[in-house]
Amino acid sequence: MKKSRHKKTSQPSVAKNKRSNTLLYGQHAVLAALKNPGRTCKVLYTTQKAAKGLPNLKLPAGCDHKTVDNDFFKNAFDEGTVHQHIALDCTPIPQMHLEDFLDQTKDQPHTFIAILDQVTDPHNVGAILRSAAAFNIQALIVQDKNAPGLTPALAKIACGAVEHVPVIEVTNISRTLETLKSKHFFCVGLDERGSQYLGDIVPHQKLAMVLGAEGPGIRRLVKESCDKLVKLPNSEQMPSINVSNAAAICFYEISNSADK
Amino acid sequence: MKKSRHKKTSQPSVAKNKRSNTLLYGQHAVLAALKNPGRTCKVLYTTQKAAKGLPNLKLPAGCDHKTVDNDFFKNAFDEGTVHQHIALDCTPIPQMHLEDFLDQTKDQPHTFIAILDQVTDPHNVGAILRSAAAFNIQALIVQDKNAPGLTPALAKIACGAVEHVPVIEVTNISRTLETLKSKHFFCVGLDERGSQYLGDIVPHQKLAMVLGAEGPGIRRLVKESCDKLVKLPNSEQMPSINVSNAAAICFYEISNSADK
Repeated sequence: MKKSRHKKTSQPSVAKNKRSNTLLYGQHAVLAALKNPGRTCKVLYTTQKAAKGLPNLKLPAGCDHKTVDNDFFKNAFDEGTVHQHIALDCTPIPQMHLEDFLDQTKDQPHTFIAILDQVTDPHNVGAILRSAAAFNIQALIVQDKNAPGLTPALAKIACGAVEHVPVIEVTNISRTLETLKSKHFFCVGLDERGSQYLGDIVPHQKLAMVLGAEGPGIRRLVKESCDKLVKLPNSEQMPSINVSNAAAICFYEISNSADK
Repeated sequence: MKKSRHKKTSQPSVAKNKRSNTLLYGQHAVLAALKNPGRTCKVLYTTQKAAKGLPNLKLPAGCDHKTVDNDFFKNAFDEGTVHQHIALDCTPIPQMHLEDFLDQTKDQPHTFIAILDQVTDPHNVGAILRSAAAFNIQALIVQDKNAPGLTPALAKIACGAVEHVPVIEVTNISRTLETLKSKHFFCVGLDERGSQYLGDIVPHQKLAMVLGAEGPGIRRLVKESCDKLVKLPNSEQMPSINVSNAAAICFYEISNSADK
C-alpha cells in the first residue's frame, strides 16, 4: 500500500531533481529562494499542515503550489532530512564571476569579502554563509576544485543565506588575492601566528578576510599573498576554535569596523 | 576471516566501555584528557602509526599504552567515527556543583560563565565549549534534564575543551540566575529584541551570558531573570545566526571586555 501511495505522489520531474541540486527544502531556505529573482521557481511542495504555517506566502509569477502528503517527502529525501514538509523545485542560482562582482561593487562605500582556503565541510560553509549574510559580508570566494557545491543540504544549513551572499568560484586563491589588492582591497588572513590581533586592524573600505581549514590553516602561498596576518586572542589552553565560529567573530569585527 | 581478526583484537573491557561514555577518541580529546588530573586514565589505545605521531607523549601514573591494529577501532566505534586511531579508556570527569564553582572562583578578578537554555545539539555544545575554553569562559551551565551529556562524541567535537571548562548541571535556569545575581553576577541574555548591542555592555567583573536555542530563543521566564537583554548587530536579511557562532562572538566580546 505504501508503495502505491508513493507512486501517486512521486513526480517524474522531482525524481530527476532529487539528484540535480534544485529541490530545495526547509522553511528558511525555501522562503528565501522564492524571493530571489535570480532563480526561476517552478513548484512549491508542502503538506496541508505546513502550508497553514505560511499564511503570508507570496509565490513568484509562474510558480505553482502543490499540496502533497508526507509520502512525497519520504520519497524525495533521504531519511533524517529536516525538510519541514516544504520543498521547492527551482533553478540553481546563476554563478557570479569575480570580475562582475568587483564591477558591481566598485562604487560602494564598503565592500567586504570572505575567502575560504580549503574549507569544504558543508556544515561549516553553511554556517559561514549565514554569518556572512548577518554581518554584510558581500561575497564568499572559494576555490573551484574545492568548492562545497551549493547543494540543497548546504542551502538548508545556510538558512537562506545562499540567496543573499554570492559564492564566487575561482581557480587560484593566491592569484585572486593579487587581483583584489590591485582593486584596493586590504587582504587579511586569520592565522594563529598573526603579527597583531583581529581587533587592532585599521578599518578599510575594501577588505578581504581569508580563513583556512582547521588544523592546516591557510596554505603558505595564500598566506604570503595576504597584506596582514591577524590572530584571535585565544587562551593557551585552546589555541584554535571551529572555523565557522572564527569566521563569525571576524565578520562581526569587520562589520563593526564599518561603523567606526 | 575478518570476523576472526575482530575477535582477536576485541577486549571485553572495551566492549563494555563502548556504551559507557568512557572510551574517548580523537587526538585533541584524548591528549587533553591524559593531562586532566580529575580523570583516572586506564589504557591508551593507538595503532603503531598513530603512536609515531605522538613523540612527546607522557602518560599519567597507572595508565598503560596498548598498541592495537585498525580492527580494534573498527570494533570499538561506529563506522564513520573520526577516531584518528587513538582512544582512551578513562573515568568520566567528576560532576562540578554550582556552589563549589562559586566558592572556588569568588576571589578571582574576573569570572565569566555561559548558560545554555535548551541548546542540546552536541555539535553546537561541543563548539561552544571549545570557544568557551578559547576565551576564558570558566564554566558552562546547562539544565540537567536537557543536558547534552559529556559523551565521547561531544568531547571529540570540543577538541579537549571538556577538560578545561566544567559543565555544571542545574535543575532550574531561572533560579540559577537568581543565585548568580545574589553573588554579584551581571546576567546578560542574547535576544534579537535586546535593548542594546552586545558591544555596548559595560564590563563586569562577574558576568553570566545566557544563550537560547535557535528559533525559540531564551524562554520567557529565563529572559525575565536576566539583568539585560542584548542583541548582535545582524542585518535585516539574516536576523539570527547559528547558536555556536553567536556564542563565539559573545565570548570574544566578554573576553575583550576584561582587558578594558
